[in-house]
Amino acid sequence: MRTSVAIIGAGPAGLLLGQLLYQAGIDNVILEQRSADYVLGRIRAGVLEQVTVDLLEQAGAAGRMHAEGLPHDGIELLFGGRRHRIDLHGLTGGKRVMVYGQTEVTRDLMAARAEAGLATVYEAQNVAPLDFDGARPRVRYERDGQTHELECDFIAGCDGFHGVCRASIPADRIRLHEKVYPFGWLGLLADVPPVSSELIYARTERGFALCSQRSATRSRYYLQVPLTEKVEDWSDEAFWDELRLRLDPEAQAHLVTGPSLEKSIAPLRSFVCEPMRFGRMFLAGDAAHIVPPTGAKGLNLAASDVGYLSQALARYYRDGSEEGIDGYSAQCLRRVWKAERFSWWMTSLMHRFPDAGAFDAKVQEAELDYIVHSRAGAMTLAENYVGLPLE
Amino acid sequence: MRTSVAIIGAGPAGLLLGQLLYQAGIDNVILEQRSADYVLGRIRAGVLEQVTVDLLEQAGAAGRMHAEGLPHDGIELLFGGRRHRIDLHGLTGGKRVMVYGQTEVTRDLMAARAEAGLATVYEAQNVAPLDFDGARPRVRYERDGQTHELECDFIAGCDGFHGVCRASIPADRIRLHEKVYPFGWLGLLADVPPVSSELIYARTERGFALCSQRSATRSRYYLQVPLTEKVEDWSDEAFWDELRLRLDPEAQAHLVTGPSLEKSIAPLRSFVCEPMRFGRMFLAGDAAHIVPPTGAKGLNLAASDVGYLSQALARYYRDGSEEGIDGYSAQCLRRVWKAERFSWWMTSLMHRFPDAGAFDAKVQEAELDYIVHSRAGAMTLAENYVGLPLE
Repeated sequence: MRTSVAIIGAGPAGLLLGQLLYQAGIDNVILEQRSADYVLGRIRAGVLEQVTVDLLEQAGAAGRMHAEGLPHDGIELLFGGRRHRIDLHGLTGGKRVMVYGQTEVTRDLMAARAEAGLATVYEAQNVAPLDFDGARPRVRYERDGQTHELECDFIAGCDGFHGVCRASIPADRIRLHEKVYPFGWLGLLADVPPVSSELIYARTERGFALCSQRSATRSRYYLQVPLTEKVEDWSDEAFWDELRLRLDPEAQAHLVTGPSLEKSIAPLRSFVCEPMRFGRMFLAGDAAHIVPPTGAKGLNLAASDVGYLSQALARYYRDGSEEGIDGYSAQCLRRVWKAERFSWWMTSLMHRFPDAGAFDAKVQEAELDYIVHSRAGAMTLAENYVGLPLE
Repeated sequence: MRTSVAIIGAGPAGLLLGQLLYQAGIDNVILEQRSADYVLGRIRAGVLEQVTVDLLEQAGAAGRMHAEGLPHDGIELLFGGRRHRIDLHGLTGGKRVMVYGQTEVTRDLMAARAEAGLATVYEAQNVAPLDFDGARPRVRYERDGQTHELECDFIAGCDGFHGVCRASIPADRIRLHEKVYPFGWLGLLADVPPVSSELIYARTERGFALCSQRSATRSRYYLQVPLTEKVEDWSDEAFWDELRLRLDPEAQAHLVTGPSLEKSIAPLRSFVCEPMRFGRMFLAGDAAHIVPPTGAKGLNLAASDVGYLSQALARYYRDGSEEGIDGYSAQCLRRVWKAERFSWWMTSLMHRFPDAGAFDAKVQEAELDYIVHSRAGAMTLAENYVGLPLE
């Protein structure tokens, strides 16, 4: 089998890249080690930047998002027992974010791919990107006990943090930057109306909480927990009780609880791999970088990566110029590091750190106080939250 | 002896308070354990916020500052080998800072005090603030072997970090917040023209450097050094050589070196004592809080403290209201914590931390890159640097 671009990974990054390439007339095949149902079962982010919305439109997969997604013009910061609104729309000259679950984005992209008749190989085992340093890369994989090879011009590694693509690079060719945070997020998904029309980011003495949502009837809540916690020790009731303790009285009064559809604990990590291109293989999304979820940058960074990559490849196929692909890594990493900084900053600002002293806690409060009372301070949060413009 | 306000400490905080009270018709006496020459010999900060300039005018001690001080409309951030200007004036709607040495401020305030004929007791030994919890506080001190008592309505503790005033408060009545940084600043004062017309804050692989100045012919330079360094191991030549390595080529070419007038190493510390009022004793300036020197907030915070205090006392003497003195601590601390946050942030942004990993260093670079390329980001630096407005 032969294609122009072999995409490894059928998460939102790989699927979006596939559609963007398809719109540019570039043939592609996606290889995914899991099943389609498994991919759809992953509960992840739900806040899309305008840049991501634009790319989904360009990919021809934005119809349902526009019909069912919830445009949000602001977020709320809860600290010192009071909520303070950050007017994203007013502070950024009219930008907003779109609340629409990653699961739904994935579903829409899958449907668009099916409609376009593009090939996706699910349950591909032992996937191995090969010869990407030369002019004729290949991807070897097994399916139903048979070994296959997919010949291609380029390989796109969209296979996540634990994927094979980054793992295929010799250690002396990459620099890894990593920071692990001393806590995790316990998340709960439930079919209950959200406690508030906008997201609430709460800094409390008991730790951070986030009131997020997927729709008007589906809520996603998170609690900062020590990494030693086990999800099986958290009954739904214990979760709701703890969440209530981290909210202000008005939110406590409006909180609607219900049985969890999903509950899990995720560690928080910052991670960047440099560079993001190795010969004819490109890394994109979580394969190259991880942000802690505070600020909702993960999916959006993956989208801007594949946006840049599709442009670079379109240019290559259109007029043979390698300038785009040569610049891909540096172009992505400028944006990646800004988002890494923002995610680290918002995480540092809102969480309770076990080793923080009294001074650090007071500085957190002073910074929050500054952010909500200085227009410039609020603008820095808002412009990063809605997403910095593409360069 | 009796006075309305006994001020302990004849540094700029105490002297400025004395003049502001004098202008409000309030009698005061300053007790200082050192000699006038010793006080004048301390080399400290040299960047005044507009708020401080305004207070010096109000104190009637701004004439020479306006004649000889250098208004600065911007600062430069040097990182990645390049300088980036922060247009303080343009970003803050016309504010600027005044470069004028603390030594000169002290000298001017001393002259104004002498002209007003106000009492200052230098070389007062074993100063002890007494009975400040009651209605009739006193300050006991010794001079020339004799014990004296100064009766007063109020005591102002302007006696610095190591002073007796804060030390007189029982530990169970104060909360102390402290952060010590794992490096110090080696400073050198020399009669050479400054390397650049504006201050340069440099972040380099070799550590932080600051090119500051006191006048068109007197420069003040600083190098980040490990706390293990000893000033006697730093010849002037070694200092200039190391400074040059931390500058960009243009600054290297313009650097004029010369013999040091003074050279010393100071540790960096963040410190806040809460509250700042204990009955009829008020703490102000370094007696209550210390900031690391990055961002030049120390003297300015002392000035705004005594500005608030003089207003509170003027109100008390004018119409008997205790509202001002009751609110003094909270009013100061709101501003103090904002300045503490800013000083901590600018210190964290610009220094090389011995325990920082590769991720932290990249985040520093990303933050600097963000600050100089985002108008909102630059505004947050600028509005804090020129000083937040008084509340």
